[in-house]
Amino acid sequence: MPIISQRGIDMPASPIRKLAPFAVAAKQKGIKVYHLNIGQPDIATPQEGLDALKNVDRKVLEYSPSQGYQSYLDKLVGYYGRYDIKLDASNIIVTCGGSEALQFAFLACFNPGDELIVPEPVYANYMGFACEMGVKVRTITTQIENGFALPSIEEFEKLITDRTRAIMICNPNNPTGTLYSNEELMQLRDLVKKHDLYLISDEVYREFRYSDKPYLSALHLEGIEDNAIVIDSVSKRYSECGIRIGAFITRNKQLLNTVMKFAQARLSPPLIGQVVAEASLAAPQAYHQGVYDEYIARRNCLVEGLNKIPGVFAPMPTGAFYAMVKLPVQDCDDFCRWCLEEFSYEGETVMMAPATGFYATPGEGKNLVRMAYVLKIEDLKRALVVLEKALEAYNAR
Amino acid sequence: MPIISQRGIDMPASPIRKLAPFAVAAKQKGIKVYHLNIGQPDIATPQEGLDALKNVDRKVLEYSPSQGYQSYLDKLVGYYGRYDIKLDASNIIVTCGGSEALQFAFLACFNPGDELIVPEPVYANYMGFACEMGVKVRTITTQIENGFALPSIEEFEKLITDRTRAIMICNPNNPTGTLYSNEELMQLRDLVKKHDLYLISDEVYREFRYSDKPYLSALHLEGIEDNAIVIDSVSKRYSECGIRIGAFITRNKQLLNTVMKFAQARLSPPLIGQVVAEASLAAPQAYHQGVYDEYIARRNCLVEGLNKIPGVFAPMPTGAFYAMVKLPVQDCDDFCRWCLEEFSYEGETVMMAPATGFYATPGEGKNLVRMAYVLKIEDLKRALVVLEKALEAYNAR
Repeated sequence: MPIISQRGIDMPASPIRKLAPFAVAAKQKGIKVYHLNIGQPDIATPQEGLDALKNVDRKVLEYSPSQGYQSYLDKLVGYYGRYDIKLDASNIIVTCGGSEALQFAFLACFNPGDELIVPEPVYANYMGFACEMGVKVRTITTQIENGFALPSIEEFEKLITDRTRAIMICNPNNPTGTLYSNEELMQLRDLVKKHDLYLISDEVYREFRYSDKPYLSALHLEGIEDNAIVIDSVSKRYSECGIRIGAFITRNKQLLNTVMKFAQARLSPPLIGQVVAEASLAAPQAYHQGVYDEYIARRNCLVEGLNKIPGVFAPMPTGAFYAMVKLPVQDCDDFCRWCLEEFSYEGETVMMAPATGFYATPGEGKNLVRMAYVLKIEDLKRALVVLEKALEAYNAR
Repeated sequence: MPIISQRGIDMPASPIRKLAPFAVAAKQKGIKVYHLNIGQPDIATPQEGLDALKNVDRKVLEYSPSQGYQSYLDKLVGYYGRYDIKLDASNIIVTCGGSEALQFAFLACFNPGDELIVPEPVYANYMGFACEMGVKVRTITTQIENGFALPSIEEFEKLITDRTRAIMICNPNNPTGTLYSNEELMQLRDLVKKHDLYLISDEVYREFRYSDKPYLSALHLEGIEDNAIVIDSVSKRYSECGIRIGAFITRNKQLLNTVMKFAQARLSPPLIGQVVAEASLAAPQAYHQGVYDEYIARRNCLVEGLNKIPGVFAPMPTGAFYAMVKLPVQDCDDFCRWCLEEFSYEGETVMMAPATGFYATPGEGKNLVRMAYVLKIEDLKRALVVLEKALEAYNAR
């Protein structure tokens, strides 16, 4: 049999998927599983986007331009303008989800063996894409006790070597639910400028910021116009994870020219997805307000409920729709498996994402789980009851 | 300014796109351009696929499974069964176009620096993906005089080193329009078996075979079940280039498990595209027959017309919708540019793809162009007239 490549062997399996067979088995036993483990919003897609599908009036579903449709690019310029991010269409390359935007960034910014610094816990697929592209990830651990705030610049600088090419953040953050402060971002600006690094900022949760402070995107930071790269996606913004429409954004023209070569090799981003995404830009403010209000209510319900359970601690998330939660157990991997395989309360159980999958440092995150508040309030309330019972039973074994 | 990666610098620009600005300028001067340069079919998408868009009845456009929808996978098994290719759904991973299937194959089969052998002229984007993934491409030159038949096994073996991991073919072939004979495929089977290599077979033009001989896919070849990988796509089959739905297919379970990790990292293939592709599988035989008859007529019109032009030679293609054409000029790159920039006949000109972009070997293909017969017969006839006038004028300068 021919060989499997080393990167194929090294490629991490999705940490959440390890639990999937246990969830399937639980359901086959008739147990209801509350899915706190995944980032698939249950929020409705804007009607404008859904209507656009029904109104597609084409005889041929042809290639779209490699950069994306001009009409969509032009409207995206307007969308970013609403956040006072000044772009022109040439700064944007439409991608197949945020995933492809990230792959393009890694391909264009890193030689194999070059290093990326990223705070951990970290969105697990960053490590997967890094493995694909030969990028060496160096993580800098953040702490639940201070809401996963960024470590000091000195801590970052300890990790910088002559192979360091970029610092990456997810802001608001998956998996921590942290919105970085303007001070933290200004420090990062100074750091990447001093060392001439890229700042790759994944901002797919831009709409989910629970703060009254003025919004700061990496694209707002002055003096690093050639350093800043934004990864974006409509997946969470419009509850359109399936249409696979993202964006690679920078003002660095040399980088744009490079990424366009990668974009041309794969011919085009999804056509129908672009049609839906473009139409969704017309979703009224009421849509966004409704989504926002719903997440605020869910967040408060979940996090306040969690902190009432003995031994549980969860900082109040300031963004995205995730909460990192410290549980009174030694090994959350085992606890999450046990919840699915060996436990139920009144015919129900909970599925959570063990946090070890979000850490590169061995041993970190063993008493943490990530929960996504993408369930209705009544289900969240019930999941909290089930979780409390599960913790009692697990620790009484 | 931060560095651009070496692969970003080395990444080849699409050869056809170099001419694009000249085509734009010609159109701005009011010149009509016959596009013989691109593989975008003008054939209508099946009505079943278009109707499926209007019937999407979802409130949330959510992630689809990383492998693709089970219902689509199950129907694909039936589609391949029509060609007597026996698969089960677990052998198929739905991808974002054939492009992503190829990226997955390169990621899983090659360590950086490992070698791929591929006949040239070669679809240019193979070289782009190879550059992305650090795959070293070694080409084996085929000749227009014998219809771009595969060289002897001895010629292939001269290129095999201890770093060789795969032989790749496109069958039917883009850019040559060649359908490989069963004898050629059996020889490749023996070769990959002897040296334990992968055989990566891009079969996206399966429907476009102009031959009465029994069809042989790489998946038919016995004894190399763990070696054979098929790259597929609905782009050409259903004129659905824009929906970005392809497939990675193999019976090698270890390879499937590896590719699934790459598939999971990018979360999911396009949802709406899968809906369209699944519905298109119900297109009636009359649709395929109509498309087939149209391409046969176009091929005959174009190739017979080309061979009547003094000094022009084109072998009759046996597959796909491309013709490689020898022109009586020294430098087709210059001729193709000149047609757009300096020539018109009765307000019209032609755009062709210079073949040098399909060769890795420097100096090869300078008197060749690729033409795609994706225009209506009347336009092809007119393009032939314009081409003949262009050749006369160019050689009379």
